[in-house]
Amino acid sequence: MKRIYYSYDTFREDLILLTQKIDFEFDAILAIARGGLTMAHLLGEHYDIREVYAVNTIGYDDTKKRDSIEVFNLPDLKGARSVLIVDDIVDSGDTMVALLEKLHTRYPDVTFKAASLFYKKSAKIMPDWSIKEANAWIDFFWTEDLR
Amino acid sequence: MKRIYYSYDTFREDLILLTQKIDFEFDAILAIARGGLTMAHLLGEHYDIREVYAVNTIGYDDTKKRDSIEVFNLPDLKGARSVLIVDDIVDSGDTMVALLEKLHTRYPDVTFKAASLFYKKSAKIMPDWSIKEANAWIDFFWTEDLR
Repeated sequence: MKRIYYSYDTFREDLILLTQKIDFEFDAILAIARGGLTMAHLLGEHYDIREVYAVNTIGYDDTKKRDSIEVFNLPDLKGARSVLIVDDIVDSGDTMVALLEKLHTRYPDVTFKAASLFYKKSAKIMPDWSIKEANAWIDFFWTEDLR
Repeated sequence: MKRIYYSYDTFREDLILLTQKIDFEFDAILAIARGGLTMAHLLGEHYDIREVYAVNTIGYDDTKKRDSIEVFNLPDLKGARSVLIVDDIVDSGDTMVALLEKLHTRYPDVTFKAASLFYKKSAKIMPDWSIKEANAWIDFFWTEDLR
């Protein structure tokens, strides 16, 4: 599979494009760790939102049932009415589906929208805003730059 | 006050230095949001640790008592034995003191160590590892680069 190095400079350009696309008012940002952490940090600063939270997920391969995703450390959203979920890539979409299910159950009155840098056409769910289709393996700078 | 622009390239160099200093085995990383989020992301990848968590803090000015720090969204540390806390700067040290107090109460058997990029000599508590003394106002790239 083709590999692409995704540099900090490209990330910065894409994040500026993403902010130009996002036509949604929100009062909190929720990063899916680890992939969404750096995005959430810069977006929190950009939108001057201190309510930047993280949530953790683990995918389990289960030979009997379908693959399952455990979502944990769901934050207290502290009265937020609209939340922007961010992740680096929406791949199969399994993580986003599992997260939204848990969020809608816990916070039925909160509006959730999702933004990612990359998406795959085959994902079960599309982010509301995204920049690029992932048609290669992406070596993000945050995985490469401390090597 | 003097201002310094702290670029991604400098951050990357400093983070490499930080990993060379940290002589501690840990099984989870805890970012103080927002300042520690990008660090935690890159360090999580570097150490191949998926248990990268975030915690939120708010400082309140209280005219009657000393300034107080609220710590919230403390994560479930999921059986971690040693945790590296990360933040961009240890300034007054109030946030770190409040966080450690809460962590030691909730997790008396877990070892916590702290790493930051910058520290101030006047801080109430010093991080275990740090890179530079902050003797200017620091414009971190994550606050500047989407402007």
